[in-house]
Amino acid sequence: MSITNDDYAQRFGCAYVEDGGVATAQGFAAAGVHAGFRADPDRLDLALVVADEPSAAAGVFTTNVFCAAPVQVCRERLSEGGVGAGAYGTARAVVINSGCANAATGEIGREAARETARITADAVGCTSDEVLVASTGVIGVHLPLEPFASGVPAAFARASRAGGASAARAIMTTDTHPKECAVTFSGEGVGYEGATFTVGGMAKGSGMIMPNMATMIAVITTDAPVAAPDLHAALSRAVNASFNKITVDSDTSTNDSCFILSSGAAAPAAPPLEPGSAAFARFEEALAQVCVTLARAMATDGEGATRLVTVNVRGAASEDDADAAARTVANSPLTKTAVYGRDANWGRIAAALGRSGARFAQENVDIDIMGMPVCRGGLTVEFDEDEALARFEEPEIVIDADLGEGACATTVWTCDFSHEYVSINGDYRS
Amino acid sequence: MSITNDDYAQRFGCAYVEDGGVATAQGFAAAGVHAGFRADPDRLDLALVVADEPSAAAGVFTTNVFCAAPVQVCRERLSEGGVGAGAYGTARAVVINSGCANAATGEIGREAARETARITADAVGCTSDEVLVASTGVIGVHLPLEPFASGVPAAFARASRAGGASAARAIMTTDTHPKECAVTFSGEGVGYEGATFTVGGMAKGSGMIMPNMATMIAVITTDAPVAAPDLHAALSRAVNASFNKITVDSDTSTNDSCFILSSGAAAPAAPPLEPGSAAFARFEEALAQVCVTLARAMATDGEGATRLVTVNVRGAASEDDADAAARTVANSPLTKTAVYGRDANWGRIAAALGRSGARFAQENVDIDIMGMPVCRGGLTVEFDEDEALARFEEPEIVIDADLGEGACATTVWTCDFSHEYVSINGDYRS
Repeated sequence: MSITNDDYAQRFGCAYVEDGGVATAQGFAAAGVHAGFRADPDRLDLALVVADEPSAAAGVFTTNVFCAAPVQVCRERLSEGGVGAGAYGTARAVVINSGCANAATGEIGREAARETARITADAVGCTSDEVLVASTGVIGVHLPLEPFASGVPAAFARASRAGGASAARAIMTTDTHPKECAVTFSGEGVGYEGATFTVGGMAKGSGMIMPNMATMIAVITTDAPVAAPDLHAALSRAVNASFNKITVDSDTSTNDSCFILSSGAAAPAAPPLEPGSAAFARFEEALAQVCVTLARAMATDGEGATRLVTVNVRGAASEDDADAAARTVANSPLTKTAVYGRDANWGRIAAALGRSGARFAQENVDIDIMGMPVCRGGLTVEFDEDEALARFEEPEIVIDADLGEGACATTVWTCDFSHEYVSINGDYRS
Repeated sequence: MSITNDDYAQRFGCAYVEDGGVATAQGFAAAGVHAGFRADPDRLDLALVVADEPSAAAGVFTTNVFCAAPVQVCRERLSEGGVGAGAYGTARAVVINSGCANAATGEIGREAARETARITADAVGCTSDEVLVASTGVIGVHLPLEPFASGVPAAFARASRAGGASAARAIMTTDTHPKECAVTFSGEGVGYEGATFTVGGMAKGSGMIMPNMATMIAVITTDAPVAAPDLHAALSRAVNASFNKITVDSDTSTNDSCFILSSGAAAPAAPPLEPGSAAFARFEEALAQVCVTLARAMATDGEGATRLVTVNVRGAASEDDADAAARTVANSPLTKTAVYGRDANWGRIAAALGRSGARFAQENVDIDIMGMPVCRGGLTVEFDEDEALARFEEPEIVIDADLGEGACATTVWTCDFSHEYVSINGDYRS
């Protein structure tokens, strides 16, 4: 990931923070502990992110009708925006358990989520309205409260600015490694002289990753001063260009939640960043960098994945066409198994483009795989199969498709489809 | 399949013909031969269905923008309807090769398809306009013509009413067994006294099976006298309720074609069946039976499948909602791997319903798996895991979901998602 992260940080004009995460920004602490949601005592299963002071907060949530109890409760908490799939308000803490999704659990589940917030408020010393909650794991099982009673105080006692790594580990389900990232940007020359701001975050993903969020949970913090409504707007834009552009298996989960908290601690006396200002633009670039890095890490770590797959579509007649085309290719099990099999079977990519609903004429389509032309004007191009096999050894497989129809483009990230995916998902509950 | 076929025949008021197929109806002959598209000399790879006389014919084709050359040529041939994805006209023969899809091959591919028709016309003794062509196999490879030159005359020499079985075998790609079916219905009491009509057909499916047809090729014949425009209308309705309701992996192929030919040979002096008449209704029931039986056989034989999965959705607010809900469940890799793992993980079904776009409230949703209530009012229901495991041993897994929102219902068929699917598709070209 290191090359990729550096690449991305440079592209977004930020500085990558080695080993940075959700508590790298000033004014935050985090910890992950084993609270008992899982049987294995060595497995962390409760994460706490806590702000030193009440912080501006925003959230974006799943659009799934079967949204989970914690999502419903967070929508109550962050009620100030009242818009669409998310909103904003004030928060002191985010508490997340893995092992149980608290979804399809009705009023009992909502009460469990509220009680989780009360337990956390007692430990942290805030009101339960200032606690955001999230759960990930099996659907349709009731959330036990005892692990919170012991786990949250333990996590709070351990929480520190170095605790991001354990928090990122505690929210993993079938993830094979934790996902965290932080970057800094300077306030120099944009009205915040002498200030260096940090945006950092953690995420979990793996299965059920698809547009409109996923089994994905992400928590992002910043010490740049940003007002809650502006945080929400910036987060929504960043999520649309990152987490909503990855797909592992076309499933959207019931629990997807992405939170952002701003402490303002890096410039405590300064006014909030003004939307439209150069300083705000830098903040949005940093936020985009963190979200894209975490999103790519999620796709890379898709269940059973052996390759990150980047699908670039250009020449589309509209943004929607570009998105539909790229997403249909990225969701195609035939494309994904072909990548797994190191097979430059561009016919499957063409078939996916053709059924995507995007407008184009097959005579105008060009397709490259790993920079190798494989289709020009809708027709097959001779290519070196040995060279193709060699390029498939790379950890990231890049597919470029030009529809030859317009000027719109997009990128969607996914992973390949392996035997391991089937093993993981054919035997998850047991 | 025998119980299922009998069940379906009874449901549709027809009589199932044991070992029936594409040449069971009077006035048709068929054969499958090894022509040389494939290296293995024991593998049949060319199918010919030939009518004794020019016959009314209709076709329904893929909606994929990357439609294959034979599809483009058939649209020219069956140009009388000029409507949407299919049309109608007159035909004497249908010739199909496996091993090469002749897709993404441009004008060279179209000329190859036309030459295939000319070769067949010479062998059969008709005009090339009366020959319908289809190809299935790898995309982006040019179609060799030599195998037709020797194979079509050989197939014509062998064609007989008993040749349906070899024809059905010759169109297989990754199919594990041939798919054919025939039923009869009586003309008694509906103006065709003394006549017994037959509808029979063959199909191939397996991978790339999805709405709006698939890598699916089907040929249906009938000796009931039906005019070409009425054949097209009836075929379109039957396809929408059968082949368009199955999905193996959400991919729609470039080559999907479904043909129907009517010889009228079972009542040569009688006028064509009149749309809206009781006789036509019986014909449509028989056609539906054949299409549903072939469609279920295709889903059962989905690549790597170990189980047929039937998804029934009711209580939807609209037909579109019912279809979206059932199709999203049926396409969900998480649902399909859960069935493979014999795991009654209804949370994945709920998550798929929730992201399908169908309107409903989670509090009103009931879900049964194999007749066992697993979710009532959006909440989990205790069920006997041993009993669930036992029921998962059945060859057909039935999922029922009631959205509690309206009066619309539908059924979609799919299969489970296995290690074998990944193996097949990760290593197809090599």
